[in-house]
Amino acid sequence: MKIDILTLFPEMFAPLEHSIVGKAREKGLLEVNYHNFREQAEKARHVDDEPYGGGQGMLLRAQPIFDTMDQIEQTNPRVILLDPAGRTFDQSYAEELAREDQLIFICGHYEGYDERIKTLVTDEISLGDYVLTGGELAAMTMIDATVRLIPEVIGKEASHTDDSFSSGLLEYPQYTRPYEYRGMVVPDVLMSGHHENIRKWRLEQSLRKTLERRPDLLERYEFTAEEAALLEKIKAEKTGQ
Amino acid sequence: MKIDILTLFPEMFAPLEHSIVGKAREKGLLEVNYHNFREQAEKARHVDDEPYGGGQGMLLRAQPIFDTMDQIEQTNPRVILLDPAGRTFDQSYAEELAREDQLIFICGHYEGYDERIKTLVTDEISLGDYVLTGGELAAMTMIDATVRLIPEVIGKEASHTDDSFSSGLLEYPQYTRPYEYRGMVVPDVLMSGHHENIRKWRLEQSLRKTLERRPDLLERYEFTAEEAALLEKIKAEKTGQ
Repeated sequence: MKIDILTLFPEMFAPLEHSIVGKAREKGLLEVNYHNFREQAEKARHVDDEPYGGGQGMLLRAQPIFDTMDQIEQTNPRVILLDPAGRTFDQSYAEELAREDQLIFICGHYEGYDERIKTLVTDEISLGDYVLTGGELAAMTMIDATVRLIPEVIGKEASHTDDSFSSGLLEYPQYTRPYEYRGMVVPDVLMSGHHENIRKWRLEQSLRKTLERRPDLLERYEFTAEEAALLEKIKAEKTGQ
Repeated sequence: MKIDILTLFPEMFAPLEHSIVGKAREKGLLEVNYHNFREQAEKARHVDDEPYGGGQGMLLRAQPIFDTMDQIEQTNPRVILLDPAGRTFDQSYAEELAREDQLIFICGHYEGYDERIKTLVTDEISLGDYVLTGGELAAMTMIDATVRLIPEVIGKEASHTDDSFSSGLLEYPQYTRPYEYRGMVVPDVLMSGHHENIRKWRLEQSLRKTLERRPDLLERYEFTAEEAALLEKIKAEKTGQ
Protein backbone atom coordinates (compact mmCIF):
# COMPACT_ATOMS: atom_id res chain seq x y z
CA MET A 1 0.00 0.00 0.00
CA LYS A 2 1.06 3.57 -0.73
CA ILE A 3 -0.08 6.41 1.50
CA ASP A 4 0.37 10.08 0.57
CA ILE A 5 -0.27 12.70 3.20
CA LEU A 6 -0.84 16.40 2.49
CA THR A 7 0.09 18.31 5.63
CA LEU A 8 1.62 21.52 6.94
CA PHE A 9 3.25 19.53 9.77
CA PRO A 10 5.15 16.48 8.45
CA GLU A 11 7.11 16.42 11.72
CA MET A 12 3.91 15.51 13.58
CA PHE A 13 3.93 12.07 11.96
CA ALA A 14 6.63 10.56 14.18
CA PRO A 15 4.12 7.97 15.49
CA LEU A 16 4.12 6.33 12.05
CA GLU A 17 7.82 5.47 12.53
CA HIS A 18 6.96 3.16 15.42
CA SER A 19 4.91 0.15 16.31
CA ILE A 20 3.00 -1.80 13.67
CA VAL A 21 2.99 0.97 11.05
CA GLY A 22 6.76 1.41 11.38
CA LYS A 23 7.26 -2.35 11.05
CA ALA A 24 5.03 -2.51 7.96
CA ARG A 25 7.23 0.15 6.35
CA GLU A 26 10.40 -1.74 7.28
CA LYS A 27 8.98 -4.91 5.73
CA GLY A 28 8.24 -3.00 2.50
CA LEU A 29 4.48 -3.57 2.82
CA LEU A 30 3.79 0.12 3.14
CA GLU A 31 5.19 3.32 1.63
CA VAL A 32 4.36 6.66 3.27
CA ASN A 33 5.08 10.01 1.58
CA TYR A 34 4.58 13.45 3.09
CA HIS A 35 3.72 16.49 0.98
CA ASN A 36 3.98 19.85 2.71
CA PHE A 37 1.55 21.89 0.66
CA ARG A 38 3.00 25.14 1.98
CA GLU A 39 5.74 24.56 -0.59
CA GLN A 40 3.13 24.80 -3.35
CA ALA A 41 1.54 28.05 -2.17
CA GLU A 42 1.84 30.69 -4.90
CA LYS A 43 4.45 33.36 -4.43
CA ALA A 44 3.60 35.94 -1.75
CA ARG A 45 0.48 33.99 -0.85
CA HIS A 46 -0.31 31.99 2.22
CA VAL A 47 -1.96 28.60 2.52
CA ASP A 48 -4.91 30.27 4.26
CA ASP A 49 -7.11 33.28 3.70
CA GLU A 50 -10.28 34.96 5.07
CA PRO A 51 -13.73 33.58 4.23
CA TYR A 52 -15.87 35.25 1.58
CA GLY A 53 -18.97 36.70 3.20
CA GLY A 54 -17.15 37.35 6.48
CA GLY A 55 -16.76 35.30 9.63
CA GLN A 56 -14.16 34.22 12.14
CA GLY A 57 -11.08 32.21 11.41
CA MET A 58 -9.05 31.40 8.35
CA LEU A 59 -9.74 28.89 5.59
CA LEU A 60 -7.39 26.59 3.73
CA ARG A 61 -7.04 27.87 0.15
CA ALA A 62 -7.76 25.58 -2.80
CA GLN A 63 -4.65 26.32 -4.87
CA PRO A 64 -1.90 24.76 -2.71
CA ILE A 65 -3.96 21.58 -2.34
CA PHE A 66 -4.83 21.28 -6.05
CA ASP A 67 -1.25 21.94 -7.14
CA THR A 68 0.12 19.40 -4.66
CA MET A 69 -2.38 16.79 -5.81
CA ASP A 70 -1.25 17.38 -9.40
CA GLN A 71 2.25 16.31 -8.40
CA ILE A 72 1.27 13.05 -6.71
CA GLU A 73 1.33 9.95 -8.85
CA GLN A 74 -2.15 8.51 -8.56
CA THR A 75 -3.39 4.99 -9.21
CA ASN A 76 -7.11 5.18 -8.51
CA PRO A 77 -6.60 6.35 -4.91
CA ARG A 78 -9.10 6.96 -2.14
CA VAL A 79 -8.70 10.66 -1.32
CA ILE A 80 -9.67 11.26 2.27
CA LEU A 81 -10.62 14.54 3.89
CA LEU A 82 -11.32 14.74 7.59
CA ASP A 83 -14.67 16.40 8.07
CA PRO A 84 -17.17 16.31 10.95
CA ALA A 85 -19.92 15.88 8.33
CA GLY A 86 -18.27 12.76 6.98
CA ARG A 87 -19.07 9.09 7.50
CA THR A 88 -17.93 8.00 10.95
CA PHE A 89 -14.79 5.89 10.89
CA ASP A 90 -15.22 2.36 12.25
CA GLN A 91 -13.72 -1.11 11.89
CA SER A 92 -15.60 -1.94 8.69
CA TYR A 93 -14.34 1.31 7.17
CA ALA A 94 -10.79 0.34 8.16
CA GLU A 95 -11.27 -3.07 6.50
CA GLU A 96 -12.47 -1.32 3.35
CA LEU A 97 -9.45 1.03 3.26
CA ALA A 98 -7.05 -1.87 3.94
CA ARG A 99 -8.00 -3.36 0.55
CA GLU A 100 -6.91 -0.24 -1.41
CA ASP A 101 -3.60 0.24 -3.24
CA GLN A 102 -3.30 3.95 -2.49
CA LEU A 103 -4.71 6.30 0.14
CA ILE A 104 -4.28 10.07 0.09
CA PHE A 105 -5.03 12.04 3.27
CA ILE A 106 -5.62 15.80 3.14
CA CYS A 107 -4.92 17.18 6.62
CA GLY A 108 -6.30 20.63 7.24
CA HIS A 109 -5.68 23.08 9.99
CA TYR A 110 -7.38 26.44 10.54
CA GLU A 111 -11.12 26.81 10.87
CA GLY A 112 -12.08 25.13 7.63
CA TYR A 113 -11.51 24.51 3.93
CA ASP A 114 -12.40 26.20 0.71
CA GLU A 115 -15.38 24.09 -0.38
CA ARG A 116 -13.83 23.53 -3.83
CA ILE A 117 -11.19 21.25 -2.27
CA LYS A 118 -13.96 18.70 -1.79
CA THR A 119 -14.14 18.14 -5.56
CA LEU A 120 -10.81 16.28 -5.20
CA VAL A 121 -12.09 14.04 -2.44
CA THR A 122 -13.60 10.55 -2.58
CA ASP A 123 -14.18 10.10 1.18
CA GLU A 124 -15.16 12.62 3.83
CA ILE A 125 -14.51 10.87 7.13
CA SER A 126 -15.20 11.84 10.72
CA LEU A 127 -13.19 10.18 13.48
CA GLY A 128 -15.91 10.86 16.03
CA ASP A 129 -18.08 13.63 17.45
CA TYR A 130 -15.31 15.88 18.72
CA VAL A 131 -13.28 18.78 17.39
CA LEU A 132 -9.55 18.43 16.71
CA THR A 133 -6.99 21.13 16.02
CA GLY A 134 -6.01 19.57 12.71
CA GLY A 135 -6.36 16.46 10.62
CA GLU A 136 -2.96 14.98 11.47
CA LEU A 137 -3.88 12.95 14.56
CA ALA A 138 -7.06 11.74 12.90
CA ALA A 139 -5.14 10.65 9.81
CA MET A 140 -2.56 8.77 11.92
CA THR A 141 -5.30 7.06 13.90
CA MET A 142 -7.04 5.90 10.74
CA ILE A 143 -3.73 4.78 9.24
CA ASP A 144 -2.92 2.74 12.34
CA ALA A 145 -6.34 1.04 12.33
CA THR A 146 -6.09 0.36 8.60
CA VAL A 147 -2.47 -0.76 8.18
CA ARG A 148 -2.71 -3.42 10.88
CA LEU A 149 -5.38 -5.13 8.77
CA ILE A 150 -3.18 -5.47 5.67
CA PRO A 151 -2.26 -9.15 5.23
CA GLU A 152 1.25 -10.01 6.53
CA VAL A 153 1.53 -6.82 8.62
CA ILE A 154 0.62 -8.57 11.87
CA GLY A 155 2.24 -11.94 12.43
CA LYS A 156 0.28 -14.94 13.60
CA GLU A 157 1.60 -14.52 17.16
CA ALA A 158 -0.39 -11.32 17.45
CA SER A 159 -3.46 -12.25 15.48
CA HIS A 160 -6.26 -9.73 15.46
CA THR A 161 -9.06 -12.23 15.13
CA ASP A 162 -9.71 -11.93 18.87
CA ASP A 163 -10.16 -8.16 18.73
CA SER A 164 -13.36 -6.75 20.11
CA PHE A 165 -14.65 -5.19 16.92
CA SER A 166 -13.67 -8.17 14.82
CA SER A 167 -15.60 -10.68 16.95
CA GLY A 168 -18.46 -8.26 17.55
CA LEU A 169 -18.38 -8.70 21.34
CA LEU A 170 -16.40 -6.86 23.99
CA GLU A 171 -13.44 -8.69 25.48
CA TYR A 172 -13.62 -10.85 28.57
CA PRO A 173 -11.36 -9.96 31.54
CA GLN A 174 -7.78 -11.21 31.23
CA TYR A 175 -5.09 -11.88 33.83
CA THR A 176 -1.40 -12.61 33.76
CA ARG A 177 1.25 -13.39 36.39
CA PRO A 178 1.52 -13.14 39.33
CA TYR A 179 -1.47 -15.07 40.68
CA GLU A 180 -1.83 -12.63 43.55
CA TYR A 181 -0.96 -8.94 43.19
CA ARG A 182 -1.58 -6.40 45.97
CA GLY A 183 -4.20 -8.70 47.44
CA MET A 184 -6.06 -9.28 44.18
CA VAL A 185 -6.21 -12.83 42.84
CA VAL A 186 -6.95 -14.43 39.50
CA PRO A 187 -10.43 -16.08 39.18
CA ASP A 188 -10.31 -19.82 40.03
CA VAL A 189 -11.63 -20.96 36.68
CA LEU A 190 -8.60 -19.55 34.84
CA MET A 191 -6.27 -21.54 37.13
CA SER A 192 -8.24 -24.79 36.66
CA GLY A 193 -6.67 -25.90 33.41
CA HIS A 194 -10.18 -27.01 32.33
CA HIS A 195 -10.27 -25.64 28.80
CA GLU A 196 -13.99 -26.06 28.21
CA ASN A 197 -14.90 -24.30 31.46
CA ILE A 198 -12.49 -21.49 30.65
CA ARG A 199 -14.01 -21.06 27.20
CA LYS A 200 -17.53 -20.92 28.64
CA TRP A 201 -16.56 -18.48 31.38
CA ARG A 202 -14.92 -16.14 28.87
CA LEU A 203 -17.87 -16.28 26.53
CA GLU A 204 -20.28 -15.50 29.37
CA GLN A 205 -18.08 -12.58 30.54
CA SER A 206 -17.97 -11.19 27.00
CA LEU A 207 -21.72 -11.42 26.57
CA ARG A 208 -22.36 -9.94 30.02
CA LYS A 209 -20.04 -6.98 29.44
CA THR A 210 -21.41 -6.30 25.95
CA LEU A 211 -24.98 -6.41 27.27
CA GLU A 212 -24.15 -4.01 30.09
CA ARG A 213 -22.01 -1.52 28.22
CA ARG A 214 -22.69 -1.76 24.50
CA PRO A 215 -26.07 -3.40 23.91
CA ASP A 216 -26.07 -1.77 20.46
CA LEU A 217 -23.32 -4.22 19.40
CA LEU A 218 -25.63 -7.16 20.16
CA GLU A 219 -28.23 -5.86 17.69
CA ARG A 220 -26.00 -6.61 14.72
CA TYR A 221 -24.28 -9.66 16.21
CA GLU A 222 -24.88 -13.11 14.73
CA PHE A 223 -25.34 -15.46 17.67
CA THR A 224 -24.52 -19.14 17.76
CA ALA A 225 -27.13 -21.29 19.51
CA GLU A 226 -24.85 -21.51 22.56
CA GLU A 227 -24.39 -17.73 22.71
CA ALA A 228 -28.10 -17.07 22.32
CA ALA A 229 -28.93 -19.46 25.17
CA LEU A 230 -26.24 -17.94 27.39
CA LEU A 231 -27.50 -14.43 26.73
CA GLU A 232 -31.04 -15.46 27.67
CA LYS A 233 -29.70 -16.90 30.92
CA ILE A 234 -27.85 -13.65 31.71
CA LYS A 235 -30.91 -11.54 30.93
CA ALA A 236 -33.10 -13.77 33.08
CA GLU A 237 -30.68 -13.38 36.01
CA LYS A 238 -30.71 -9.63 35.63
CA THR A 239 -34.47 -9.34 35.74
CA GLY A 240 -34.48 -11.67 38.75
CA GLN A 241 -36.53 -14.41 37.10
CA MET B 1 -3.51 21.40 33.66
CA LYS B 2 -1.07 18.59 34.30
CA ILE B 3 -1.09 15.49 32.10
CA ASP B 4 0.86 12.34 32.97
CA ILE B 5 1.20 9.64 30.34
CA LEU B 6 2.23 6.05 31.04
CA THR B 7 3.66 4.64 27.83
CA LEU B 8 6.29 2.32 26.39
CA PHE B 9 6.80 4.75 23.48
CA PRO B 10 7.38 8.32 24.74
CA GLU B 11 8.95 9.15 21.37
CA MET B 12 5.56 8.65 19.70
CA PHE B 13 4.27 11.82 21.36
CA ALA B 14 6.00 14.28 19.00
CA PRO B 15 2.58 15.61 17.87
CA LEU B 16 2.11 17.15 21.32
CA GLU B 17 5.11 19.42 20.65
CA HIS B 18 3.22 21.13 17.84
CA SER B 19 0.08 23.06 17.10
CA ILE B 20 -2.31 24.10 19.87
CA VAL B 21 -1.04 21.61 22.45
CA GLY B 22 2.55 22.74 21.88
CA LYS B 23 1.51 26.38 22.27
CA ALA B 24 -0.41 25.65 25.47
CA ARG B 25 2.76 24.12 26.91
CA GLU B 26 4.84 27.13 25.83
CA LYS B 27 2.34 29.46 27.50
CA GLY B 28 2.64 27.46 30.73
CA LEU B 29 -1.03 26.46 30.65
CA LEU B 30 -0.18 22.78 30.33
CA GLU B 31 2.47 20.44 31.72
CA VAL B 32 2.97 17.05 30.08
CA ASN B 33 5.07 14.29 31.67
CA TYR B 34 5.93 10.92 30.16
CA HIS B 35 6.50 7.82 32.28
CA ASN B 36 7.99 4.85 30.48
CA PHE B 37 6.73 2.02 32.64
CA ARG B 38 9.29 -0.38 31.19
CA GLU B 39 11.71 1.29 33.61
CA GLN B 40 9.58 0.03 36.50
CA ALA B 41 9.37 -3.59 35.36
CA GLU B 42 10.90 -5.84 38.01
CA LYS B 43 14.35 -7.20 37.33
CA ALA B 44 14.47 -9.94 34.68
CA ARG B 45 10.78 -9.46 34.01
CA HIS B 46 9.03 -7.99 31.05
CA VAL B 47 6.12 -5.57 30.89
CA ASP B 48 4.00 -8.29 29.31
CA ASP B 49 3.24 -11.94 29.94
CA GLU B 50 0.96 -14.75 28.74
CA PRO B 51 -2.70 -14.88 29.78
CA TYR B 52 -3.84 -17.25 32.55
CA GLY B 53 -6.18 -19.82 31.08
CA GLY B 54 -4.47 -19.73 27.68
CA GLY B 55 -5.08 -17.73 24.56
CA GLN B 56 -3.31 -15.75 21.91
CA GLY B 57 -1.26 -12.65 22.50
CA MET B 58 0.43 -11.04 25.45
CA LEU B 59 -1.04 -8.99 28.28
CA LEU B 60 0.28 -5.93 30.03
CA ARG B 61 1.34 -6.90 33.56
CA ALA B 62 -0.07 -5.08 36.57
CA GLN B 63 3.18 -4.48 38.46
CA PRO B 64 4.94 -1.96 36.18
CA ILE B 65 1.74 0.12 35.96
CA PHE B 66 1.05 0.07 39.72
CA ASP B 67 4.66 0.94 40.59
CA THR B 68 4.72 3.79 38.06
CA MET B 69 1.45 5.17 39.41
CA ASP B 70 2.92 5.13 42.91
CA GLN B 71 5.63 7.52 41.74
CA ILE B 72 3.32 10.08 40.12
CA GLU B 73 2.24 12.97 42.31
CA GLN B 74 -1.54 12.86 42.23
CA THR B 75 -4.06 15.58 43.02
CA ASN B 76 -7.42 13.90 42.52
CA PRO B 77 -6.68 12.98 38.89
CA ARG B 78 -8.88 11.39 36.25
CA VAL B 79 -7.06 8.16 35.38
CA ILE B 80 -7.91 7.19 31.82
CA LEU B 81 -7.53 3.78 30.22
CA LEU B 82 -8.30 3.26 26.55
CA ASP B 83 -10.72 0.38 26.25
CA PRO B 84 -13.19 -0.58 23.53
CA ALA B 85 -15.72 -1.28 26.30
CA GLY B 86 -15.41 2.27 27.60
CA ARG B 87 -17.67 5.29 27.18
CA THR B 88 -17.26 6.71 23.67
CA PHE B 89 -15.25 9.91 23.57
CA ASP B 90 -17.15 12.95 22.30
CA GLN B 91 -17.18 16.73 22.60
CA SER B 92 -19.06 16.77 25.91
CA TYR B 93 -16.50 14.33 27.33
CA ALA B 94 -13.69 16.65 26.13
CA GLU B 95 -15.43 19.58 27.87
CA GLU B 96 -15.63 17.53 31.05
CA LEU B 97 -11.91 16.62 30.95
CA ALA B 98 -10.95 20.23 30.17
CA ARG B 99 -12.21 21.23 33.62
CA GLU B 100 -9.84 18.84 35.47
CA ASP B 101 -6.53 19.77 37.11
CA GLN B 102 -4.80 16.48 36.30
CA LEU B 103 -5.28 13.74 33.73
CA ILE B 104 -3.35 10.47 33.71
CA PHE B 105 -3.42 8.33 30.57
CA ILE B 106 -2.43 4.66 30.66
CA CYS B 107 -1.43 3.63 27.14
CA GLY B 108 -1.33 -0.08 26.53
CA HIS B 109 0.09 -2.10 23.73
CA TYR B 110 -0.18 -5.86 23.22
CA GLU B 111 -3.44 -7.71 23.12
CA GLY B 112 -4.82 -6.51 26.43
CA TYR B 113 -4.33 -5.69 30.09
CA ASP B 114 -4.26 -7.57 33.32
CA GLU B 115 -7.77 -6.83 34.63
CA ARG B 116 -6.38 -5.66 37.99
CA ILE B 117 -4.99 -2.52 36.32
CA LYS B 118 -8.58 -1.31 36.03
CA THR B 119 -8.74 -0.83 39.82
CA LEU B 120 -6.48 2.22 39.29
CA VAL B 121 -8.70 3.71 36.65
CA THR B 122 -11.51 6.29 36.90
CA ASP B 123 -12.44 6.42 33.19
CA GLU B 124 -12.47 3.69 30.56
CA ILE B 125 -12.76 5.52 27.25
CA SER B 126 -13.20 4.32 23.69
CA LEU B 127 -12.21 6.63 20.84
CA GLY B 128 -14.56 4.86 18.45
CA ASP B 129 -15.50 1.44 17.12
CA TYR B 130 -12.14 0.49 15.66
CA VAL B 131 -9.03 -1.34 16.85
CA LEU B 132 -5.73 0.51 17.32
CA THR B 133 -2.26 -0.91 17.82
CA GLY B 134 -1.81 0.96 21.09
CA GLY B 135 -3.26 3.67 23.25
CA GLU B 136 -0.83 6.40 22.22
CA LEU B 137 -2.66 7.84 19.21
CA ALA B 138 -5.95 7.67 21.05
CA ALA B 139 -4.45 9.49 24.05
CA MET B 140 -3.00 12.22 21.83
CA THR B 141 -6.30 12.65 20.02
CA MET B 142 -8.18 13.05 23.30
CA ILE B 143 -5.52 15.44 24.62
CA ASP B 144 -5.79 17.59 21.49
CA ALA B 145 -9.60 17.76 21.71
CA THR B 146 -9.43 18.53 25.44
CA VAL B 147 -6.57 21.01 25.66
CA ARG B 148 -8.01 23.32 23.00
CA LEU B 149 -11.04 23.82 25.30
CA ILE B 150 -8.98 25.05 28.26
CA PRO B 151 -9.60 28.80 28.67
CA GLU B 152 -6.83 30.99 27.20
CA VAL B 153 -5.40 28.16 25.06
CA ILE B 154 -7.12 29.33 21.87
CA GLY B 155 -7.04 33.07 21.27
CA LYS B 156 -10.14 34.97 20.24
CA GLU B 157 -8.95 35.12 16.60
CA ALA B 158 -9.45 31.38 16.37
CA SER B 159 -12.53 31.01 18.51
CA HIS B 160 -14.06 27.57 18.66
CA THR B 161 -17.61 28.75 19.17
CA ASP B 162 -18.29 28.17 15.47
CA ASP B 163 -17.18 24.54 15.62
CA SER B 164 -19.61 21.93 14.42
CA PHE B 165 -19.98 20.04 17.65
CA SER B 166 -20.16 23.20 19.74
CA SER B 167 -23.07 24.68 17.76
CA GLY B 168 -24.74 21.30 17.30
CA LEU B 169 -25.08 21.69 13.52
CA LEU B 170 -22.66 20.78 10.74
CA GLU B 171 -20.79 23.64 9.10
CA TYR B 172 -22.00 25.51 6.03
CA PRO B 173 -19.72 25.56 2.93
CA GLN B 174 -16.96 28.15 3.06
CA TYR B 175 -14.93 29.82 0.30
CA THR B 176 -11.84 31.98 0.17
CA ARG B 177 -9.90 33.72 -2.62
CA PRO B 178 -9.73 33.56 -5.57
CA TYR B 179 -13.32 34.10 -6.71
CA GLU B 180 -12.81 31.67 -9.59
CA TYR B 181 -10.52 28.67 -9.33
CA ARG B 182 -10.22 26.04 -12.06
CA GLY B 183 -13.62 27.07 -13.38
CA MET B 184 -15.36 26.90 -10.00
CA VAL B 185 -16.85 30.11 -8.62
CA VAL B 186 -17.99 31.32 -5.22
CA PRO B 187 -21.81 31.42 -4.68
CA ASP B 188 -23.26 34.87 -5.51
CA VAL B 189 -24.74 35.44 -2.07
CA LEU B 190 -21.28 35.38 -0.42
CA MET B 191 -20.10 38.12 -2.82
CA SER B 192 -23.19 40.30 -2.23
CA GLY B 193 -22.02 42.03 0.94
CA HIS B 194 -25.60 41.61 2.24
CA HIS B 195 -24.93 40.37 5.76
CA GLU B 196 -28.47 39.26 6.57
CA ASN B 197 -28.78 37.23 3.35
CA ILE B 198 -25.38 35.64 4.00
CA ARG B 199 -26.40 34.70 7.54
CA LYS B 200 -29.65 33.14 6.32
CA TRP B 201 -27.94 31.26 3.48
CA ARG B 202 -25.34 29.82 5.87
CA LEU B 203 -27.97 28.78 8.39
CA GLU B 204 -30.00 27.05 5.68
CA GLN B 205 -26.88 25.26 4.35
CA SER B 206 -26.02 24.07 7.86
CA LEU B 207 -29.50 22.77 8.51
CA ARG B 208 -29.70 21.11 5.10
CA LYS B 209 -26.34 19.36 5.51
CA THR B 210 -27.12 18.23 9.05
CA LEU B 211 -30.51 16.87 7.94
CA GLU B 212 -28.94 14.96 5.05
CA ARG B 213 -25.87 13.60 6.77
CA ARG B 214 -26.38 13.58 10.53
CA PRO B 215 -30.10 13.73 11.32
CA ASP B 216 -29.23 12.26 14.74
CA LEU B 217 -27.66 15.62 15.68
CA LEU B 218 -30.99 17.37 15.11
CA GLU B 219 -32.70 15.16 17.67
CA ARG B 220 -30.78 16.79 20.51
CA TYR B 221 -30.54 20.27 18.98
CA GLU B 222 -32.42 23.19 20.52
CA PHE B 223 -33.95 25.12 17.64
CA THR B 224 -34.70 28.83 17.53
CA ALA B 225 -38.04 29.71 15.95
CA GLU B 226 -36.22 30.79 12.77
CA GLU B 227 -34.30 27.51 12.57
CA ALA B 228 -37.39 25.41 13.15
CA ALA B 229 -39.26 27.23 10.37
CA LEU B 230 -36.32 26.91 7.99
CA LEU B 231 -36.02 23.19 8.69
CA GLU B 232 -39.72 22.70 7.96
CA LYS B 233 -39.26 24.52 4.64
CA ILE B 234 -36.28 22.25 3.73
CA LYS B 235 -38.19 19.11 4.66
CA ALA B 236 -41.23 20.23 2.64
CA GLU B 237 -39.03 20.83 -0.42
CA LYS B 238 -37.51 17.38 -0.06
CA THR B 239 -40.84 15.61 0.01
CA GLY B 240 -41.94 17.71 -2.99
CA GLN B 241 -44.85 19.42 -1.22
